[in-house]
Amino acid sequence: MALAEERVLSIQSHVVFGYVGGKAAVFPLQCLGYDVDVVNTVNFSNHSGYGRSGGSKTTAEELKTIFQAMERNELLRPTRLLTGYIPGAEALSAVEKLASKLKHAKPSLIYLLDPVMGDAGRIYVAPDVIPVYKEMLPLATIITPNWFEVELLTDIKLNDIESLHQALEILHMKYHVPNVVISSIPLEPWLAEALPPSIRPTKHSDSYEPHLLCIASSFPTASATLNGRVLHPSQPIVHAQCVPLIPGYFSGVGDLFSALLLAHFHPDTTPETLHASPLSTAVSQALSKTHAILVMTQAVAEALPEEERLPSDDELDVEDPMRKIRRMRGRELALVRGQDLIRGHGITHVREMISWEGFGGSK
Amino acid sequence: MALAEERVLSIQSHVVFGYVGGKAAVFPLQCLGYDVDVVNTVNFSNHSGYGRSGGSKTTAEELKTIFQAMERNELLRPTRLLTGYIPGAEALSAVEKLASKLKHAKPSLIYLLDPVMGDAGRIYVAPDVIPVYKEMLPLATIITPNWFEVELLTDIKLNDIESLHQALEILHMKYHVPNVVISSIPLEPWLAEALPPSIRPTKHSDSYEPHLLCIASSFPTASATLNGRVLHPSQPIVHAQCVPLIPGYFSGVGDLFSALLLAHFHPDTTPETLHASPLSTAVSQALSKTHAILVMTQAVAEALPEEERLPSDDELDVEDPMRKIRRMRGRELALVRGQDLIRGHGITHVREMISWEGFGGSK
Repeated sequence: MALAEERVLSIQSHVVFGYVGGKAAVFPLQCLGYDVDVVNTVNFSNHSGYGRSGGSKTTAEELKTIFQAMERNELLRPTRLLTGYIPGAEALSAVEKLASKLKHAKPSLIYLLDPVMGDAGRIYVAPDVIPVYKEMLPLATIITPNWFEVELLTDIKLNDIESLHQALEILHMKYHVPNVVISSIPLEPWLAEALPPSIRPTKHSDSYEPHLLCIASSFPTASATLNGRVLHPSQPIVHAQCVPLIPGYFSGVGDLFSALLLAHFHPDTTPETLHASPLSTAVSQALSKTHAILVMTQAVAEALPEEERLPSDDELDVEDPMRKIRRMRGRELALVRGQDLIRGHGITHVREMISWEGFGGSK
Repeated sequence: MALAEERVLSIQSHVVFGYVGGKAAVFPLQCLGYDVDVVNTVNFSNHSGYGRSGGSKTTAEELKTIFQAMERNELLRPTRLLTGYIPGAEALSAVEKLASKLKHAKPSLIYLLDPVMGDAGRIYVAPDVIPVYKEMLPLATIITPNWFEVELLTDIKLNDIESLHQALEILHMKYHVPNVVISSIPLEPWLAEALPPSIRPTKHSDSYEPHLLCIASSFPTASATLNGRVLHPSQPIVHAQCVPLIPGYFSGVGDLFSALLLAHFHPDTTPETLHASPLSTAVSQALSKTHAILVMTQAVAEALPEEERLPSDDELDVEDPMRKIRRMRGRELALVRGQDLIRGHGITHVREMISWEGFGGSK
């Protein structure tokens, strides 16, 4: 349970039905003891994965009005800030100003910035938000970009371990982001081969079981120590872990993961496990709980009547939009049913993040 | 825990900071196992009790767009409906059409209608919502008006036991509302004297300790039975209970109570206690949990530094709006801290609703 004083300001999308954005983040944070101030950047009927939805975006003006009223009423008192999907550059700039104001008023503010821009090569925000996100990076305590968003933020195409080194270096050194967490990375062979054996999944019949990789990279300040050992500031601490891929498309997973990561991040506590860092400890918790919720969600989806779980088929889906819509509906995260998992009950095993020794090349 | 299939559609206000409307209702419903579809009728920085706020109302057009998209996507599948603060007649009419559509498509729909219009003689919605609410009453399974809202709905001034009889008769017979729950009624002497001794609080030095009265009135169908006894359709079953008044103004209490009442209402289960009805059982739970949250909230408020709990003083409050604002902030419901209470843990004693025999005059 978080301290009673812990308060999160969450700024992201709202959908009436289902669990993405705020609907995927706020309830878990509340279950874990955080009071949450909830700003809705959009108000839609359902998430975009359904193919069609209704509702409206909150204008930059409306956001500013809300932020101003909160400031005037002394209601801007979060100890943590969480920002997710913010569709337009003007709205994002309003959030940037607010984040900057909060960070300077309270340097201890823990800001988890999820630079939601796109996935798998497809951008689903206005492209002019990209430079705004780059400006915002130095304000963040933790960022949780996906593989594609790392490429957009660093302008580096990730196709080998060196490009990954460069990208992380840019995020840490150029943009001064102390903690970078890249979750659900498709485990390409080159990436699997680069992993230390302790992290690499076992090969079956000469190929890897489908896995997702999660990488957490902390760039400590000169004074930082890990398990008593003083850390060289030029050397990031990198942890990683593989999680079995659960087939099928689920929405809101990243939003849930980021919320759980923020909830479990306690920078001032010394980790119990050897080689663990406050970041890796939080990522281990977030990874394990997110995976457990996904397993439950899939079980629920599998139990639905067949017409509610028809497989993806672009042609048929175009002919009959309800195919996709029912599939999406059946795959909404089982957050309420799985709330005990979020509280940490029934998590059979925690997927500990493993220290990636020598990632920086310095053994 | 509710059945996994149980799904609530909640249509009420949203505030970024604090707990009224949806912020007071959704989390408790989720904790009790309900998936909740959340429609925000306004998006404000904070509740109106602060004296000033920022944000905007959702227009009737926006609401209709969301409802249409949900219908088109087959996402209108609640087993229960909860409606609260809806500021304008046009928006309310859109909700009325939706409620009517849902009720006719699924007659088993449990609809808790909280006709939020005002309190203690003050109306805080557009007056033209009153006739719309009257139209909506026949759709409701349960309504939770306060004392003043009963007067607005029935056009009867409540000043003696006969006027209360008349008002309930109008709600049951003219508007066909099966279940009426009036909570937090100021216990005037005439009302205290009319109570059976089993419900009436004890007098101290010839006056009653400040209490709030809660009345629950069910009007059974001809076939209905209570503990085996067939009920005469012309006779409502009335239960009541007194709860010690907690001094000070708290917001969102009614919204929390209504959400808990809806969550605990199971019309098809036979009550364990003698003389209890499904309604009185649910009211007992909602009353006990709401009171427990209020007690915790007051304890939190009492522990705040003095400047955050300055007593109400209309003159000084006008001079310095921050006086009131800080007071309000300090009295936001301790929902997150008290979430175990909502789940039923640590409720020291349940305030059972007591059967008010002979209320209808028929002994």
